[in-house]
Amino acid sequence: MLDEKILAILRNNTDTHVSGEELCKLSDISRAAIWKHIEKFREEGYEIEASPHLGYRLISIPDRLIPGEIKWGLGTKILGKTVISYKKVDSTNNVAYELAEKGLAEGAIIIAEEQEKGKGRHGRLWQSPPKGGIYMSCILRPKMVPNEISKITLLAAVAVAKAIRAATGLNAMIKWPNDILVNDDKVCGILTEMKAEQDEIAFVVIGIGVNVNTPSRGLPKGASSLREELPRDNKVEISRVELTKKILQMLEEEYMRLKREGFVHIIDEWKQMSSMIGSRVKVVTQNRTFEGLAHDIDPDGAFVVRLEEGILERVSSGDIIMVR
Amino acid sequence: MLDEKILAILRNNTDTHVSGEELCKLSDISRAAIWKHIEKFREEGYEIEASPHLGYRLISIPDRLIPGEIKWGLGTKILGKTVISYKKVDSTNNVAYELAEKGLAEGAIIIAEEQEKGKGRHGRLWQSPPKGGIYMSCILRPKMVPNEISKITLLAAVAVAKAIRAATGLNAMIKWPNDILVNDDKVCGILTEMKAEQDEIAFVVIGIGVNVNTPSRGLPKGASSLREELPRDNKVEISRVELTKKILQMLEEEYMRLKREGFVHIIDEWKQMSSMIGSRVKVVTQNRTFEGLAHDIDPDGAFVVRLEEGILERVSSGDIIMVR
Repeated sequence: MLDEKILAILRNNTDTHVSGEELCKLSDISRAAIWKHIEKFREEGYEIEASPHLGYRLISIPDRLIPGEIKWGLGTKILGKTVISYKKVDSTNNVAYELAEKGLAEGAIIIAEEQEKGKGRHGRLWQSPPKGGIYMSCILRPKMVPNEISKITLLAAVAVAKAIRAATGLNAMIKWPNDILVNDDKVCGILTEMKAEQDEIAFVVIGIGVNVNTPSRGLPKGASSLREELPRDNKVEISRVELTKKILQMLEEEYMRLKREGFVHIIDEWKQMSSMIGSRVKVVTQNRTFEGLAHDIDPDGAFVVRLEEGILERVSSGDIIMVR
Repeated sequence: MLDEKILAILRNNTDTHVSGEELCKLSDISRAAIWKHIEKFREEGYEIEASPHLGYRLISIPDRLIPGEIKWGLGTKILGKTVISYKKVDSTNNVAYELAEKGLAEGAIIIAEEQEKGKGRHGRLWQSPPKGGIYMSCILRPKMVPNEISKITLLAAVAVAKAIRAATGLNAMIKWPNDILVNDDKVCGILTEMKAEQDEIAFVVIGIGVNVNTPSRGLPKGASSLREELPRDNKVEISRVELTKKILQMLEEEYMRLKREGFVHIIDEWKQMSSMIGSRVKVVTQNRTFEGLAHDIDPDGAFVVRLEEGILERVSSGDIIMVR
């Protein structure tokens, strides 16, 4: 808390120096203690100028996924109220699921710089190399029946796609049910898991993995990172902290809107950002494989495919692949 | 394993004595070791006659919910293949859920003589006094989408009602979605919980609590036990072991049938045993309360109520109370 207080003072005065004396007064500790905090910040990657006569000035902030950075200016009411961060973890979804079982509140997020066993859908692996990615899981406790989990999944896809568009200008598209593509390459995957009784969701964990600045050599075929997809003349590092905040803000906005206005507008937004509607697709479910025209999303969030004979087929489980 | 082997020999020879020598030969241990096993069985409640010249004879078996008894002559392929028993546990569903997360196989059951925090639906308490009850949880791993969990719940209700009918002759009826009533009193509750991804169930835990020989003073209002509901001139102790086995057998039968033939026959059986269809009911959901006529169960397992104006209302979550 003291850390956050001192940092806040420095953040609010980046155009000038704050004297050691002033910092002592504002945070109510000794000059020696202030110095220790400054040293710690520097170790964490904060660049802080120290001038013997003028005092301290914050020069730059590290792009690290730590609570202090993520919560700074976040402005949400639920999402990110609690932030738990790790350097390395087996899977943020596993940690979030365990903590949710122990009662961790709605809106808490678990975030890591690296995952050793990042999880994809259906037991698949999600490559989660250190440096460059955002691997985070959010706990929600919607008062819904289990079937409505697809609403949460689609909502998350909409929120993340909007956040990527806002933060990078890239034309993020959604691939049913929960991948985010840029230029047809996968840059983000979303995995929703829940604990539920027959007629009531206990909690949902939304796992979001985004390849932000990840070099493409660290990624599997068909995957890319946001930085790789930036125009050739503008390949800047993207701030992961800012994108994380944007995602949390968008998630909260869509979640509140779902509660207030229902699911219809989410379906509409989802459709507008869909990479598939109108395209020829191959559907692979557990029992069969067939082709058709990606036709629509129905009000329950199922994918509707139009077969050759004109029959409409609902798909609520499985994979959908574009046919070119 | 040796325990089970020795017990099996005794079980198969209850009309005669088995000499110590013979037991030694068949189980390949010393006479002193045999004696230790016999002593242990006696402590567990097995009545074993020991005659110096004739040998050992099994007189009676305790009605204890232990793996050896439950698995003896069970004859199932999946349900009860693994049995883990406890004298006392917080909640068999909690234990089963944790073990399922760690990979415990389909069909495993967790069973206890007593629960300290037996769980009912929606965080309610399920009274689980020692002696007299069956408190067990079964792990299933059906390849289904989350919405299909109601199929599993209704299936479990059908299986348990049939098992109670077969084991006791009592006219067990089902109250939507998953209570079992005898003479309008609740004798059994079923709580299904699951872990699922958006389009795939990882596992389901079916918690089954049956008041078998429980004295009614140990039970809340409106609840009863099977023994209490037996005819006045025939109030015998009901074998909990036999009823447990019957429940596992019926669960397996219905589960196999669901996989083979689909859900229709389960709905049919459910309707035949329903205590409510045709009755006036009050529906209490999270958002509202209304009355109507219990009309039907729809193919998804939702309860259908006919309102005064003739409108049919689907109820997939909440409580339904008979109005007299």
